[in-house]
Amino acid sequence: MMKISKIAKILKIELNSLTIFSEDEKALEINAMNTLKDAKKDEISFVSNSKYIKDIKNTDAGAILVDENTKKYVPDGCIAIVVQNPYWEVATLSKHFSSPIEDDNIITPRVGEGTKISKKAEIASGAVIGENCTILAGAYVGSNVTLGDNVTLYPNVVIYRDCVIGNNCRIHANTTIGSDGFGFATNKLGEHKKIYQNGNVVIEDDVEIGSSTTVDRAVFGSTLIKKGVRIDNLVQIAHNCKVGEYSVLVAQMGMAGSTTIGRNVVMGAQSGVAGHLEIAPFTTFAARSGVTKTIKESGKIFAGFPLMEHRAWLKLQSKIAKLLKA
Amino acid sequence: MMKISKIAKILKIELNSLTIFSEDEKALEINAMNTLKDAKKDEISFVSNSKYIKDIKNTDAGAILVDENTKKYVPDGCIAIVVQNPYWEVATLSKHFSSPIEDDNIITPRVGEGTKISKKAEIASGAVIGENCTILAGAYVGSNVTLGDNVTLYPNVVIYRDCVIGNNCRIHANTTIGSDGFGFATNKLGEHKKIYQNGNVVIEDDVEIGSSTTVDRAVFGSTLIKKGVRIDNLVQIAHNCKVGEYSVLVAQMGMAGSTTIGRNVVMGAQSGVAGHLEIAPFTTFAARSGVTKTIKESGKIFAGFPLMEHRAWLKLQSKIAKLLKA
Amino acid sequence: MMKISKIAKILKIELNSLTIFSEDEKALEINAMNTLKDAKKDEISFVSNSKYIKDIKNTDAGAILVDENTKKYVPDGCIAIVVQNPYWEVATLSKHFSSPIEDDNIITPRVGEGTKISKKAEIASGAVIGENCTILAGAYVGSNVTLGDNVTLYPNVVIYRDCVIGNNCRIHANTTIGSDGFGFATNKLGEHKKIYQNGNVVIEDDVEIGSSTTVDRAVFGSTLIKKGVRIDNLVQIAHNCKVGEYSVLVAQMGMAGSTTIGRNVVMGAQSGVAGHLEIAPFTTFAARSGVTKTIKESGKIFAGFPLMEHRAWLKLQSKIAKLLKA
Repeated sequence: MMKISKIAKILKIELNSLTIFSEDEKALEINAMNTLKDAKKDEISFVSNSKYIKDIKNTDAGAILVDENTKKYVPDGCIAIVVQNPYWEVATLSKHFSSPIEDDNIITPRVGEGTKISKKAEIASGAVIGENCTILAGAYVGSNVTLGDNVTLYPNVVIYRDCVIGNNCRIHANTTIGSDGFGFATNKLGEHKKIYQNGNVVIEDDVEIGSSTTVDRAVFGSTLIKKGVRIDNLVQIAHNCKVGEYSVLVAQMGMAGSTTIGRNVVMGAQSGVAGHLEIAPFTTFAARSGVTKTIKESGKIFAGFPLMEHRAWLKLQSKIAKLLKA
Repeated sequence: MMKISKIAKILKIELNSLTIFSEDEKALEINAMNTLKDAKKDEISFVSNSKYIKDIKNTDAGAILVDENTKKYVPDGCIAIVVQNPYWEVATLSKHFSSPIEDDNIITPRVGEGTKISKKAEIASGAVIGENCTILAGAYVGSNVTLGDNVTLYPNVVIYRDCVIGNNCRIHANTTIGSDGFGFATNKLGEHKKIYQNGNVVIEDDVEIGSSTTVDRAVFGSTLIKKGVRIDNLVQIAHNCKVGEYSVLVAQMGMAGSTTIGRNVVMGAQSGVAGHLEIAPFTTFAARSGVTKTIKESGKIFAGFPLMEHRAWLKLQSKIAKLLKA
Repeated sequence: MMKISKIAKILKIELNSLTIFSEDEKALEINAMNTLKDAKKDEISFVSNSKYIKDIKNTDAGAILVDENTKKYVPDGCIAIVVQNPYWEVATLSKHFSSPIEDDNIITPRVGEGTKISKKAEIASGAVIGENCTILAGAYVGSNVTLGDNVTLYPNVVIYRDCVIGNNCRIHANTTIGSDGFGFATNKLGEHKKIYQNGNVVIEDDVEIGSSTTVDRAVFGSTLIKKGVRIDNLVQIAHNCKVGEYSVLVAQMGMAGSTTIGRNVVMGAQSGVAGHLEIAPFTTFAARSGVTKTIKESGKIFAGFPLMEHRAWLKLQSKIAKLLKA
């Protein structure tokens, strides 16, 4: 939690410019960073891309990082904090809103009846673990993580702080839940600055995840794996993805950031989905499909890269075969 | 081990229907589940796909899960257990034939002379470890695992229960051997039920496996890596695959379930092989090949997806180049 | 360190042939193996491919493994060690120049002020760790590893012996740095012999690496990740690669051995680069690009496999769409 005056100081905003904040504005307490869409009064948001200007008028954010040109779109009652490069300053601020890797205060983890925890597993401060769980050697349960009942963590599974795992989940060896999303700002010199990933991962009930899979925590909010999902080995799920109920993600497939897939979607082995897309329920993608557009109609089967309906893909193969003979 | 009468009870087969079993049938002891082809008298098999009906007459299984329509193909001396959805009931039964994740009875592991085990490694009940092995911190050797002589397990390698590793094997950090194959049944509502993977992984002598690779255990029987195989990093080998002697699997390639590749096959980086195929010995696949058909003739070189002979692939590229200029 | 006479003995060079070495030659001390280009007077090199014959005259190596036909190119002052299959004997010798997995002599690790190390982490003999580092449970820091200041190793990260990590680096869970490169010689029977990977990995300052990524150690010299690089999850970097400053490697991409990429290169998700290539600075590759040729001109954007300029790739897609309609 920090006041606007402190944020202004962190961002090295000129005193002159600081004076344009009223005393009330300077005293406003900000608890977190968030998107324009999800931010509340006690949160700060940002506009780093002109395509989001249209969303400014509907935000509930208490303050917004904007550049000089965008300032005029910020409505009354929302504090405009003007900086040269808003995305770079998102990175600067994100560090100040981040939690320590593990909490320092020692809160003994709560563990439900019937749960077995290997002495070689690590349960960090403040974790809450349900009943009849099995946590094997080398598994790591971070600060404030919540595990439901009947959860199995195989050896060397890592759950980063603040993540939530539902009942009856089974996570196989060497898988990582909640590692940092791949987020950074880049300046004109080509240097990068980390955007701290202050969200978490929420996994609902009855989910099984294979070995050496990675599910990144959200930058804000949650990466979400819904009830009954099946994830195979070596799958990559980037920050802020949402995976619908009973969807099936086969080995070595990958999802880029902020993509949402509906229920009972099947993503074939080694397939990939670009970021910020939406995939309709009951869509099936053959192995190696490369998905770069939103799919609105449910129940269809796709293949190839670029993606096409599976039927078209089969036709293309026969055309290619003919081309080869020509 | 359980009697047919217990299986009938687990599957909630109506008492009426149960009465069709003779007393001898009800008393038959079943030790495991298996495929029609491999099942023995004390094992139960299933038919969930009409293409396997032809194999029923040759099975040695003591009992078979079938649907009403398939019942008539079950020969005398083999017990037909009629259910609505045999594959779903395979999932139901598989749990009852599964072993605990670690054995409860404490059998002190046997460790050969000259073997060094880090105090931070975990060796579960009943493991048998050969001579002159090196087991580094964080490695996990599950119940009843057998390691040969001169085996090196780098830090955080995980070997699930019942797997067998030959002499002179070297397995690099964070690799997982024997995690569950990706098996489940799905009902009409789109819900999944886990098929417990009750087989294991067998790795023969002189095999080296890279880091963060995953080799899944078989659903029944064994996933098999034969003598002298070389596997790179981040490779996925699904349940019930067989990899022939001295084959070379380059980084990030993946094999789907039940595929068999012959000796000295080279699978290029990021290549993939679909399930239930057979690949002739001495076949070479260029990087990124996508293999969807059985290869019968040995010694050829392939590339592309869809797959073609490497020569044809080169020709296709020049055709595409012309197409672009047109 | 070993004398030429010992090398001759290891390689079982005939006594007759041994006698052609002078007493001075036999006594020459060899400290390591290296490439023709990088070898010094106290190192031994090899020629296993006729395309490297041209480099023999410029080598500073004290000795070279060559076959009978190549012997004549070895200049005066450099000892020619004639063997039937030089690459196979590189494998034989590499074992004798390798270090133990962990050092036996107990050198207490040096740890800087402010550094926190979990009791469940393992720090091997001779490691040197800077100030204000955080090393979480299950992390492994091998013998003689050097970590700079402010380094974070998340749970179960593995750093093999002799690797060097700069200041402010952050390495996410289950990632492996310094595992063996995928190197082996193969004889006429198709059998493989390991080439021990006696180099290391050097990671410069301000690098962040995701979870379950693998960076292999060099066979000779160093695999190098330069300042400010960002690497996502499940990325594979093979032995002897060099990654330029501020480059960005997105999830599930892979680099084959000995490839060098310049600064600020962006490799899209699931892309791949073949071995022994050079990529100019500021090159961008779209997701799934397959790079098989050196890129000399900087600042361009590429896509596809086979690779083409992104503009051409878009054009190709529209041609394919037309082909499908035809």
